[in-house]
Amino acid sequence: MEKLIARALEGDHRSIARLISLVESESPQAEIIMRKIYPHSGKAHIIGLTGSPGAGKSTLADKIIAHFKSLGKTVGVIAVDPSSPFTGGAILGDRLRMQQHAVDPDVFIRSMGTRGSLGGLSRSTQEAALILDACGKDVVLIETVGVGQSEVDIVKIADTVGLILVPGMGDDIQIMKAGIMEIADIFIVNKADRDGADRVATEVNMMLDLLGMRPWRPPVLKTIAERNEGVEEVVSEMTRHADFLRRSEEGRRRRWQRLGMEVEEILRREIAAMVEVAWEKEKSPELFELLAARKTTPYEVAERILGTILTETCD
Amino acid sequence: MEKLIARALEGDHRSIARLISLVESESPQAEIIMRKIYPHSGKAHIIGLTGSPGAGKSTLADKIIAHFKSLGKTVGVIAVDPSSPFTGGAILGDRLRMQQHAVDPDVFIRSMGTRGSLGGLSRSTQEAALILDACGKDVVLIETVGVGQSEVDIVKIADTVGLILVPGMGDDIQIMKAGIMEIADIFIVNKADRDGADRVATEVNMMLDLLGMRPWRPPVLKTIAERNEGVEEVVSEMTRHADFLRRSEEGRRRRWQRLGMEVEEILRREIAAMVEVAWEKEKSPELFELLAARKTTPYEVAERILGTILTETCD
Repeated sequence: MEKLIARALEGDHRSIARLISLVESESPQAEIIMRKIYPHSGKAHIIGLTGSPGAGKSTLADKIIAHFKSLGKTVGVIAVDPSSPFTGGAILGDRLRMQQHAVDPDVFIRSMGTRGSLGGLSRSTQEAALILDACGKDVVLIETVGVGQSEVDIVKIADTVGLILVPGMGDDIQIMKAGIMEIADIFIVNKADRDGADRVATEVNMMLDLLGMRPWRPPVLKTIAERNEGVEEVVSEMTRHADFLRRSEEGRRRRWQRLGMEVEEILRREIAAMVEVAWEKEKSPELFELLAARKTTPYEVAERILGTILTETCD
Repeated sequence: MEKLIARALEGDHRSIARLISLVESESPQAEIIMRKIYPHSGKAHIIGLTGSPGAGKSTLADKIIAHFKSLGKTVGVIAVDPSSPFTGGAILGDRLRMQQHAVDPDVFIRSMGTRGSLGGLSRSTQEAALILDACGKDVVLIETVGVGQSEVDIVKIADTVGLILVPGMGDDIQIMKAGIMEIADIFIVNKADRDGADRVATEVNMMLDLLGMRPWRPPVLKTIAERNEGVEEVVSEMTRHADFLRRSEEGRRRRWQRLGMEVEEILRREIAAMVEVAWEKEKSPELFELLAARKTTPYEVAERILGTILTETCD
């Protein structure tokens, strides 16, 4: 394990992949890995790229990667697939479009599921980003499919969130998701050669005006990813945003917030593990029958379990 | 509070509405209310109705309610709106269509947001369902907008989940959401006078065949809600499903599972509160700077806080 971590920290892709797999499968070594990795992290620019299916995310990601590379940056990519909470199966697909970089030694690409009963990005997505960061990637690009929770979660992980919009693709639905308007740092109107691109850009600008003055006014950019048009500006605005975060009060606020969330998440997991053990010991067909008959309540049961955990540690 | 709860338990709608508001706003009395209410719950048939926007959910809900009423049942309705996790604002809309029952003393209708950083149905949706159940509603109908997590969450709350499909409405998208196929107990092809209704029904049946033998084989029904066609069969299949749950091993498994989730949810909340208090005490600009500089890690901080929580209770 020591050797594996050391090789990963030197940037070896096979070792990095192995670490991410161990973390993703919630192996008992996951925590050991994260504890060793963590002190090396905190240098990368973590970018979230989100948008509805069909917005051209993978194509744009591909061009963005190429652009960062041309600037001499190393890039790690995490592609998050929607998955059934029941089967855990990931829908792959246009992931293949990014394959042009798959054999490139400078670009590490990893596909991950959303797992977890809560939908959205799993804890391991953040851990994978930390691993890529610690292992020397200058840029970590997280591509999330814009359905549901994952696009809102991305703000918890990424420094810079790019939201891809497309002209003529159910604008009502795009605009209905008001939450996403507030988390995007850069708006990208892709397929800008289509009718209505200017209108989408104008509408976004109007909505941003409605949100009022904020320390970072998200730019609204137009791209035609397939023809590599406008991508340079996207990358330069992403970098400008990273600079903004480095210097500004807003950036510090975000960094602190994320660190706080990391602490809370670890706490929750450790306590959840203790609770699970106590609940496993407590639960029985008899208890369920009592609950079903309303002869006891979940509140009483929870209280008893909590009491058990807290007093056990006193001995 | 005692009086309010007593009046609600007698079925007074204004008191029920007040209790739900208190629970929804996470008032300090919320837990007291739920502890008092809980023992009276467990009798209602809780039905989830989900489907894409435009599938005709509200119209169908309206007809289903009328049908249950004609059978002498009292009905409570919870309409869950998508809401921005940031503004908390709910998008109302065709809710008005259900207004025909809004002044009906037998039907209690409540609109709720999805709130909460986790998306999907909020904890208060389940609590509202428990309140309506305890306060004497025979049927609690939860209408969720089929976007993202809420349609998957519904299975945790509802006994019976009805999924509404519509011919010619982005079948790919409907089918892509494989998770939803596995949680629906009844499939309803609404607007069945449209072209392609039979094809949708056939495809659903084929997918159900692929899922293999299960103790409950979900029926695939066709309705034209606007003309009240097929609604009677929907209601009778919903009732048949409730009977199935009452008698079957599968039903017991689900009841136990839900009770287990309720216990775990309460535990999670109590723990989250403890974590928050401890973390508030611990956090400081100095600590954040140490974390940001990687001079300490979230793991070390979490460990220290956990130690504090566990030892404090020993005194």
